[in-house]
Amino acid sequence: VDAFFDPNGVAVIGASTRPGKIGHEVLRTLVGSGYAGGIYPVNPAAASQEILGKRCYARLSELPGRVDLAVIVVGAESVPATIEECAAAGVRAAVIISGGFKEMGEAGAVLERRTVEAAQKGGLRLIGPNCIGISSSSSRLETFFQPREMMARPGPGPIAVMSQSGTFGATMLEWLAGENLGVSKFVSYGNRSDVDEVDLAGYLARDDSTGLMIFYIEGLGRPRRFFELAREVGRRKPVLMLKGGRTRLGAAAAASHTGSVAGDYASFLGVMAQCGVVLAADAEELLDLAKLFALVPLPAGGRVMMVTNGAGPCVIASDVISTSRSLSLARLGHEGSDRLKRELPPFCVVGNPVDLTGSADARSFAQALEVLAADPSVDVLMPVLVFQDAPLGLSAGELEGVMAAVRKTGKPVVAVAGGGPFTREHALHLQGAGVPVFPTATRAVTALDGFVRHALWRQQSGQTGSPKL
Amino acid sequence: VDAFFDPNGVAVIGASTRPGKIGHEVLRTLVGSGYAGGIYPVNPAAASQEILGKRCYARLSELPGRVDLAVIVVGAESVPATIEECAAAGVRAAVIISGGFKEMGEAGAVLERRTVEAAQKGGLRLIGPNCIGISSSSSRLETFFQPREMMARPGPGPIAVMSQSGTFGATMLEWLAGENLGVSKFVSYGNRSDVDEVDLAGYLARDDSTGLMIFYIEGLGRPRRFFELAREVGRRKPVLMLKGGRTRLGAAAAASHTGSVAGDYASFLGVMAQCGVVLAADAEELLDLAKLFALVPLPAGGRVMMVTNGAGPCVIASDVISTSRSLSLARLGHEGSDRLKRELPPFCVVGNPVDLTGSADARSFAQALEVLAADPSVDVLMPVLVFQDAPLGLSAGELEGVMAAVRKTGKPVVAVAGGGPFTREHALHLQGAGVPVFPTATRAVTALDGFVRHALWRQQSGQTGSPKL
Repeated sequence: VDAFFDPNGVAVIGASTRPGKIGHEVLRTLVGSGYAGGIYPVNPAAASQEILGKRCYARLSELPGRVDLAVIVVGAESVPATIEECAAAGVRAAVIISGGFKEMGEAGAVLERRTVEAAQKGGLRLIGPNCIGISSSSSRLETFFQPREMMARPGPGPIAVMSQSGTFGATMLEWLAGENLGVSKFVSYGNRSDVDEVDLAGYLARDDSTGLMIFYIEGLGRPRRFFELAREVGRRKPVLMLKGGRTRLGAAAAASHTGSVAGDYASFLGVMAQCGVVLAADAEELLDLAKLFALVPLPAGGRVMMVTNGAGPCVIASDVISTSRSLSLARLGHEGSDRLKRELPPFCVVGNPVDLTGSADARSFAQALEVLAADPSVDVLMPVLVFQDAPLGLSAGELEGVMAAVRKTGKPVVAVAGGGPFTREHALHLQGAGVPVFPTATRAVTALDGFVRHALWRQQSGQTGSPKL
Repeated sequence: VDAFFDPNGVAVIGASTRPGKIGHEVLRTLVGSGYAGGIYPVNPAAASQEILGKRCYARLSELPGRVDLAVIVVGAESVPATIEECAAAGVRAAVIISGGFKEMGEAGAVLERRTVEAAQKGGLRLIGPNCIGISSSSSRLETFFQPREMMARPGPGPIAVMSQSGTFGATMLEWLAGENLGVSKFVSYGNRSDVDEVDLAGYLARDDSTGLMIFYIEGLGRPRRFFELAREVGRRKPVLMLKGGRTRLGAAAAASHTGSVAGDYASFLGVMAQCGVVLAADAEELLDLAKLFALVPLPAGGRVMMVTNGAGPCVIASDVISTSRSLSLARLGHEGSDRLKRELPPFCVVGNPVDLTGSADARSFAQALEVLAADPSVDVLMPVLVFQDAPLGLSAGELEGVMAAVRKTGKPVVAVAGGGPFTREHALHLQGAGVPVFPTATRAVTALDGFVRHALWRQQSGQTGSPKL
C-alpha cells in the first residue's frame, strides 16, 4: 500500500488536453501539488504533445522514468487492458477514478472482476474504481479532479480521511481546511475492488504522520478483521466513523452507489462500541468529533461545567446532556461555589452554568474558569461565548491567553459560539490556541458524548491518558 | 404593542458616555440604525453632555419631544422607579435590557413584580427584563447592545424572530444574514414580565411585513391561548419553534436563565403538532426550516426525488428519509425513467438518485430535472450538487437559470451542497434564485420532514397552496 502514498513516479492514463475534462484536471492537480517525483501523462491521442508542461506519451512502455503509481481515467471498458499494461510496465499501484463498474449492475461487475484479476495477476494493488483519488501530506501527492479553486485543501496534520464516497471526502476535506485542521492521508476508495478498510487502517496504524482516522463507509470488506484491527489500533489512534446504508432504503442506495452490501446497523453499532470506534450520526457530527479528538485531551469523565455571558444555549445544552449516554452536569463543590459568589459581581448566577451575564468580559471568564478548572468535580469546561456582546467582543483578543492558561490544568476546554464573521474569526483564533469551538450547544454536547464514551472505553481497556496525535 | 415597533421618539435611560458599556452601545446602535424619530439619551450623571451627537438629559420630564418607547439599561433596583417616571412622561412602552430580576431568585422576583405593577398602573407595556432588545425593519429601529461590527444584521424580509434568549436571537439574526434571508421584526423578551408570546404572535398576525414566525421559548406565558392563536394564525403565517427546557435538567437551567417554568415536553409536542406549529430539535434545524419556508412553496406530498453528480450524500439521505415521519423516496414512472435512460449518457444510473456521475455539468442537471419535475410521482426535487467537481464547477453559473426553469413547475427544489468558499458562493447564488441549499443531506431531509408535515397539516385543515410570504 506504501506505493500509493510515496510513489516513485506517477502516470496519468487518459490525460486530456481539454480543461474541464477529468483527465485534464487530475493532471493539473498533480502538477500543482508539489509532488517531487516524475509525472507522466499517457494518451495515444495526445502523444508527443505537451499537457500542462509535461510531455504526453502514447503508452506506458514508452515512459523514460520509473512509475510506481498509475492514475486511471480511461473509460471502464478499457480499464482491464490498461491494468495489464501497468503490470507489464512494473507499476505497483493504480488509482482508478473511472466509474462504470459494480455500481452499474451485472455488466459493470464483470468488468470490475476482470480488472481485479488483471491486477492480482500483475502484482498491482488497486484503489477504486469510481473514486476521486488520494492525497498524502508527506509526499505532497494529490490526484483529485477537483481543482484547487473549487475545492480548498487542508494543510498537513494528524487526521487521515478514508471515504468510500468521493463527495463526502471532498466536503470533509474542505470543512477541515475551514477549521484549520490538518490531514495526513486522504483516500477515496469508491467500489473498494481491492484495497479495503483493513488495508487502509493497517497502513495508517504504522504511518507516523497519522494520529486519528476518519472513515466514511457504506459496507466493510472484511468486517471481522476490521473490528479486530480497530480495537487494537484504536488504543493508539482513535477511529471515527460514519456509516451510510443504515436502513433498507439507504442500503439500496449504497448498492447503486458503490455496489456495497450493508449489514444490520444495530449489531454493527454494538460491535463498533466494543471496539472503541466512535460512530457519528451524520457528517457534521463526524467533523465535530474530529475537531475534539484533534485538539483536546480525553477527559477523566463526563461531568460538564458551563460558564457563559449568555445562558440560552446552556438550557439547550442541559437538555442534550440529559439525554446523552456519558455526560452529566457538574455540581460545583462548596469551596469553588463560595469563592465564585465572593469574587464575581452580585448579578452573576453561580450554578451550572455560571452565568456571568452580558456585562462579562474576557477577565470575568478568566476569573471563573480558574476556579472551575481547579474544582475536582469538573471533568470538562464548556465556555459558552457571546462574542456579539460588546464587553466580551471588545476584550475577545485576551481570550486566547485565558484559554491557554486554563488548558494547562489538563482539563479539556470545549467552547460554544454561534454567529457571523466576527464570531467565526474569534472562534478560529481560539481553535488555534487549542480550544475547539462549536456553532451550537447541541453540536458541542453531542460530539462530547462520543468523545467521553471513547475515554471511558480506553479506561475500561486499561489505557490512561490521551493518545498522542 | 405597536408602540414598540413604530414609536414616536425613543429614550435610552441609563445611556453612558463610555464605549463598551451596555448603556453606550444601545445608544450607538440606535443612532446608527436609520430610525427617523427623536433619540434621547437620559442619565443625570451625563446631563447636558453630548453622547454620540445626541444631547443627554438628566430626566425624562425634561425631554423636548414626545417619547413612546424607553429602552432601560439602569441597575435592576432602579427599574421600578424608572417605570413610574416613564408613565408620568407619557411613555407607552419600555424595553428593559437590565438583568437582576426573576432569574436571580426571590429578591429579583419581588423587584420584577414591582416593575410590572408600576407599568400596569402607568399604562405601559414591557418587554424584558433581561433581554437584548428589539428591531423593526419597517421603522428601522434597533435597540441592541451588540455593535454592528460584532453582530451582522439581516436585511428586511418576511421572517419574524421572537426569542426568549438573547444569545439564541443574536445567533439566529447572524445566521439569517449569512443566508441572505430577511427579517421583519425581532424581539428578545427575556423574563417575559409582561409582553408574552400571545401578544407577539397576535401582533405579528396583523403585521404586513411578517409572513413567517420563529420562536425560541423556554416556557409559554399563556399556553392555551397561544395554542389557539397558533392554530388560527399558522394557516396564513407558519409558526416555527425551538423549545429549551425539554428535560428536568434543561428546565432547571431555564428557571435560572429566564425564570421560566417548563411543562412536559411530550404533551407539548403533541399539542403543537395539532396546531401546525413546526418544532425544531435544535437551532440549526430551526434555521433550516426557516430557509425552506421562506424560499419554497409547500409540496403536495413527501415523495423526494434526488439527482446528483456525487451520490454519497444520497445514501445518507435515504437513511434519513427511511426514519422520517412524512417522507419517502419517489419512484420514477416508466415514461420518465425510459426517457432518462434514452437521453442521459450510458454510465448514468437512473434510479433514486438519478446519478449523473462526476462528469455531469449544469446541462446534465437541466436535462434530468426537466424530466423529473414533470413526473407526477415526484413531490420534491432534491439536487445533490458537487460544485468541487470540475465539470459542474465550471458550468455552475448556468445552474441559476436551470433552477429558475424548474421552479416554474411549482414543485419545491431543495438542494444539498457541502464544502468550502467556492461551494458556499454558488450555494448563495442558488438561494438568491429561490433554491435553498443545505450543507448536508441530513439537514436538508430533516428540515424537509417538518416542512412536509406542515403541508399535510394544512391539507388536513382544508387549506390549499402555500401561505403568501
